[in-house]
Formats: sequence, C-alpha cells, structure tokens
Amino acid sequence: MTNRYKERNDEKADEKRPEDAAERWDRDFVRELHAIRRPKILKRIPGLNNGEVWILGAIWGLERERQMERIRVSELVKMMHCPAPAVSRQLKSLESRSFILRETDPEDRRNTLVSLTDAGIAKAKEMEACLNEFARGVYERMGAEDMEELIRLLRRLRHILEEEEGRWMSAGRNRKEEAPKKGKKKGEMR
Amino acid sequence: MTNRYKERNDEKADEKRPEDAAERWDRDFVRELHAIRRPKILKRIPGLNNGEVWILGAIWGLERERQMERIRVSELVKMMHCPAPAVSRQLKSLESRSFILRETDPEDRRNTLVSLTDAGIAKAKEMEACLNEFARGVYERMGAEDMEELIRLLRRLRHILEEEEGRWMSAGRNRKEEAPKKGKKKGEMR
Repeated sequence: MTNRYKERNDEKADEKRPEDAAERWDRDFVRELHAIRRPKILKRIPGLNNGEVWILGAIWGLERERQMERIRVSELVKMMHCPAPAVSRQLKSLESRSFILRETDPEDRRNTLVSLTDAGIAKAKEMEACLNEFARGVYERMGAEDMEELIRLLRRLRHILEEEEGRWMSAGRNRKEEAPKKGKKKGEMR
Repeated sequence: MTNRYKERNDEKADEKRPEDAAERWDRDFVRELHAIRRPKILKRIPGLNNGEVWILGAIWGLERERQMERIRVSELVKMMHCPAPAVSRQLKSLESRSFILRETDPEDRRNTLVSLTDAGIAKAKEMEACLNEFARGVYERMGAEDMEELIRLLRRLRHILEEEEGRWMSAGRNRKEEAPKKGKKKGEMR
C-alpha cells in the first residue's frame, strides 16, 4: 500500500515538470476530439433515445447503401462496435414502437434480419433532416476557409497515422521474431 | 414494397444532384474523424485485447486523477459509454490475469470496487509508454505549425457546436411549449 501511494506521489511530481509540445498537443487534441465525438444534439431527437438514434441511423445507412430491405443483425453488431445484447435491446425497443421489423432469415435460420417500417423510414428521415440542419448551421458559421483547412489537416494526420502504424506493426513483428522467448503466449500478442 | 423501392430510387436520384459545400464538408469531416478515432495501434498492445486496453486505461486514468486506489464499477461503466455486462466481462478477464482486483464495497455492498494490482500498474505504464511513443512520432511528423492550427480549428468548431446546441435546445424547449398537443408522450421527447 505505502509503496503504491509513494508511486502515486512520484506520478504527481512527474506531472509537475513542464509539458513538452507533443504532450500538450496530445492533451488538447484528444480533449477536442472527445468533445466533438458525442454531440449532445444526438440526445435531443424527439422520440428516440441516444442508442436508438445510432442504431436507426445505421440501419437506414445500410439499407440505402445496398438498396435492399433487410439487414443482418450480426452485421449491425459489427458495424456498431457494440456488444450483441446491447444492440438486441435497442432493436427490441425500436420494434415495440413499430420502427423496425425483425424476422428470421429464411435462408439461414440462425440469422435475424431487420428492416425499417414505413414509420421507421419516416423517423430516420426526420432525424437525418434534423441533424443535417444542425450540422449545416455549424459548418456555415465555421466558414469555408476554416472547414477546408480543418479537413486538410485531419486528412494529413490520418495519412501520417496510417504510415506510422504500418511501420510500427512491421517493427513489432521484427521485435517478436528477434525475442520470442519473452514468456508470452502467442495468442496474447494480438 | 413497391412504394418502398420507389422511395429508394428517389433517394438515389437525390444522391445524384451535386453535393453542396456543407454536404461535402460533412462527409469528409465525419470520415476523417472516424478513421482517426479507432487507431489500429490500440489492437497491438502486447498481452491486451482492444477492450481491455480501454478499460485498463480508464482505471489507470481515474486512479491517478483521484490519487485513490479503488474505483466503482458503476463509474467505469458510465465513463466507457458501454453496457455493464461488456465492462464486467473485460474486468473478469483482466482479473483472471491478475491485472486488477475486484472487491465488494464495504460501505455499500451493492457496489463492486476495482483497483490495479502492481502487475496492472506495470502493464498500464507499459501501454502508456507505448502509446506515447507512437503519438509523439505522429505529432512530430505533423510538425508544430500544423498541430497548433489543427487544435485551434477543432477548438473553434467545438465552441460553435456548443453554442448552436444551446440555441437548438432552447428553441426545442419553446417548440415543445408552443405545441404540446403533438401526440407524443413527454417521456418520449428526451
């Protein structure tokens, strides 16, 4: 215990040394990304809770993209990066208000298929119109120059990120090959 | 059915009209944010899967922030924006490898408390060092000028977003007061 508290105090002392530029960028950048990621507006769509907004939007997006009616629940789960039971719960709630239909896949009875009802399509369009109007207001206040510059910088950051990830992963592979006796099971590495 | 396919085709025709600037910004901005949000590097921390990385990082962050040992599971769930059973599963897995301890809160037996073990602290530090080294490489390649500009633009966007959300919400309240007979239950509105 004493040892852990001591460590905690070392951390504290550590935090007092001046931040360097990369640390400041990291803190500020992560903070801004986090604030932008979950806009409160998504909690204010009439008649839908926050989770339902995401799922209804995902079904609507997939249905439109593929020009087909029914979407596999397993695909939705994968797309939402969300555990299956949580997705199921939201689907059940959307179904209880007749926004979606759930059916067993006649071609593979292990799959459940979902589709938007007419009421669901109307609700998705209402939600989309509401979010688009809101986003348009924000982008227009930002102005063309700043929006173009913001997108250019994010794109540049993403390219660098992807390149560095590539380098990192091939270096990791090499490290693994050079030092395979570190006592970690292979399954644990990935 | 026919009706819905027709609607689908109208959508398609709709998509063919030229995008305006705000639509293009929305598409590009959302795409870049999405790509940056889930860096693949988080899947490459030796000995931890992706979900464990987030949870271990969250416990480590909270423990350090509060200079106290034990964190309520309910707080973690809230912080992770993730359903409780998914968090529990990751905690069980971290516990099975002795990175954390789970205990019943002696002051309120309905709560479970978690804390990092010494091995957990070591793993969190290893993970942090790895991510910091990676992030530093990315930021340094971006360069000071572009990083400062990116943060300035994100901050400006966030301020506008917050102001517009405030306006939107007070307008929504007014709309609700003016037209309370729209047939929606109050509970459905939020």
